[in-house]
Amino acid sequence: MIEQFSFRLMMTDGAARRGEFATPHGKVQTPAFMPVGTQGTVKGLSPEDVRGTGTEIVLGNTYHLMLRPGAERVAALGGLHTFMNWPLPILTDSGGFQVMSLSELRKVDERAVTFRSHLDGAMVELTPERAIEIQMLLGADIAMQLDECLKLPAARDDIARAMQLSLRWAERSKRAFETKAREGCALFGIVQGGDDLTLRAESARELTGMDFHGYAVGGLAVGEPQEVMLKIVAETTPMLPDSHPRYLMGVGTPHDLIEAVARGIDMFDCVLPTRNGRHGMAFTRRGAINLANARHANDARPLDGESEHPVARTYSRAYLHHLTKANEMLGAILLSTINLAYYQTLMAGMREAIAVGRFAQFREQTAAQWQRGDLPAL
Amino acid sequence: MIEQFSFRLMMTDGAARRGEFATPHGKVQTPAFMPVGTQGTVKGLSPEDVRGTGTEIVLGNTYHLMLRPGAERVAALGGLHTFMNWPLPILTDSGGFQVMSLSELRKVDERAVTFRSHLDGAMVELTPERAIEIQMLLGADIAMQLDECLKLPAARDDIARAMQLSLRWAERSKRAFETKAREGCALFGIVQGGDDLTLRAESARELTGMDFHGYAVGGLAVGEPQEVMLKIVAETTPMLPDSHPRYLMGVGTPHDLIEAVARGIDMFDCVLPTRNGRHGMAFTRRGAINLANARHANDARPLDGESEHPVARTYSRAYLHHLTKANEMLGAILLSTINLAYYQTLMAGMREAIAVGRFAQFREQTAAQWQRGDLPAL
Repeated sequence: MIEQFSFRLMMTDGAARRGEFATPHGKVQTPAFMPVGTQGTVKGLSPEDVRGTGTEIVLGNTYHLMLRPGAERVAALGGLHTFMNWPLPILTDSGGFQVMSLSELRKVDERAVTFRSHLDGAMVELTPERAIEIQMLLGADIAMQLDECLKLPAARDDIARAMQLSLRWAERSKRAFETKAREGCALFGIVQGGDDLTLRAESARELTGMDFHGYAVGGLAVGEPQEVMLKIVAETTPMLPDSHPRYLMGVGTPHDLIEAVARGIDMFDCVLPTRNGRHGMAFTRRGAINLANARHANDARPLDGESEHPVARTYSRAYLHHLTKANEMLGAILLSTINLAYYQTLMAGMREAIAVGRFAQFREQTAAQWQRGDLPAL
Repeated sequence: MIEQFSFRLMMTDGAARRGEFATPHGKVQTPAFMPVGTQGTVKGLSPEDVRGTGTEIVLGNTYHLMLRPGAERVAALGGLHTFMNWPLPILTDSGGFQVMSLSELRKVDERAVTFRSHLDGAMVELTPERAIEIQMLLGADIAMQLDECLKLPAARDDIARAMQLSLRWAERSKRAFETKAREGCALFGIVQGGDDLTLRAESARELTGMDFHGYAVGGLAVGEPQEVMLKIVAETTPMLPDSHPRYLMGVGTPHDLIEAVARGIDMFDCVLPTRNGRHGMAFTRRGAINLANARHANDARPLDGESEHPVARTYSRAYLHHLTKANEMLGAILLSTINLAYYQTLMAGMREAIAVGRFAQFREQTAAQWQRGDLPAL
């Protein structure tokens, strides 16, 4: 029997929430961080390595996968879980954000977004209905509605227009989902409205009236200062039902994650741990560390001798520095692994703290440890 | 107690030899293939992944490591085994071959080879004595003498001069080794002489008189046709003592390996399995397969369902094709792993066949399977 999507809120501590959702491919503990598997792979890591970091769910990108290898092809090959050898849950985005950030030429009208593929220059059309169809072909456990996402700052009229269009696309996405959904699959709506709280409220009210399985806060981490993002999050989550998971899209740094959980967010995705890992940066309990820096060249200590992950405990800073300077793949592999493991350790720490009503202390202690900074160089 | 280097010839089958050598970091079964860890990492694989392919020994490059991170630094960090987290044996080359192939400006005289670093343009000098010192600083289990290596074709006079110089450098390497060697470490001499059998014979005779722990056949796989290489190997190995291991440097394809074992070679190193893996090529029991080819795009079959290695059995050709086309790191990682696993399976097959006196049949059957080619596309 295929498990139906469901969310259970287990505990709250202030606005922070400890929960669990069930999907056809298993359960996920929240707050949860989802590594990004843009092109059917979390960059640089095998699926076993991703699981080894404590990851329970990954994100797949509709925009990339529809262009290459193609959604129908992935479906014919058994779906994205089989294709990428990832047996646990997958959330797919709708492609809207990447259309904005990756394709140079695009046209948005009522019916669809039309864009030029960054791969071969072909013009491609994406409707809300096609975005759902693609996500069902991929076999997503959680699908996202198509939305229009703007960069900030933007004029209020533009934000309002994009938010209204996203609401109408939410309705069309929901109708398409109701006819095409795979058993047990969930659909999330996306709250838009930029940095305008009135527009956010209107978006949240209309969306919750449509009754999605979960709600995302979209259109953030797109150029605005962190305090603006956190203010929007803080004001938006109370407008969403306690009974449903809340997903802050495309966020963020470890500090973003802990502050957004403090404001009622349950789910995150972000490329930072893997992208920064490919560029020599490590996220650790003592803050971010740039392994390209020459001060690490003779440092025999591991990045974090107290880490739960063997990679962070095993390889010396000097070796990671060498691999980074030599542009060796293994540097990107090890640092991406270390970063994802740290993100998942941070999420696990938040979950435990919420469960015992000590989230405020955890938040404070974690920030203090970051601020004390890295150990001095040897 | 540190194990002293020793070689034991266990069985012969025609000219093919089944043996074992012992080093301070453990035993190695021969014929053996050594993956190349140029810059302190076998490209794209963690040490655990390398071990998972059945690898018992890796090669480290003196040229690269002396320039970055520097031999003294590696020594201060505990040696190359600790630095790269590889607890099994390491053979280091002497740097001579890379000076020829990588540095644009170089000058060879009696005393040293002087070259311009490909990293920062600095002029660097490498003497036979310094090459030994570097290899001892790295902590090699097997060190190689410094030699002068020419590309083929070359004039006989040039080949003779380089071979004679290499003999004098062999003597100096041996003397340096005798004063600086780490306990249990071995030193191999390198037979030179290009494609000239008279020069090869002179080189082999002089070197064996110096009594090295093992003998390499160098200066091959440098531009000459395969039949020339195999002829030189076939004529050279009988000039070397049965009691010592024989190492064919920088070779080769699976076909090269099996044919060289048939001519009495015990050890190999080559970048092919990892380099070709990074370029979408897989080595399999059914020959080489180019995963970039569009015929694999819809092929749900694994590369080799009968492989002993899970990676070759698990991921579909369609997925490997996708990763290759998308230039994803995981494509390079998986194909490098599959290729090394195939190389080690081939070596294990040769060892088993020699042990039971069926090497000729193994050689014939393996070649026939390659020639039948890959399974037809789905």
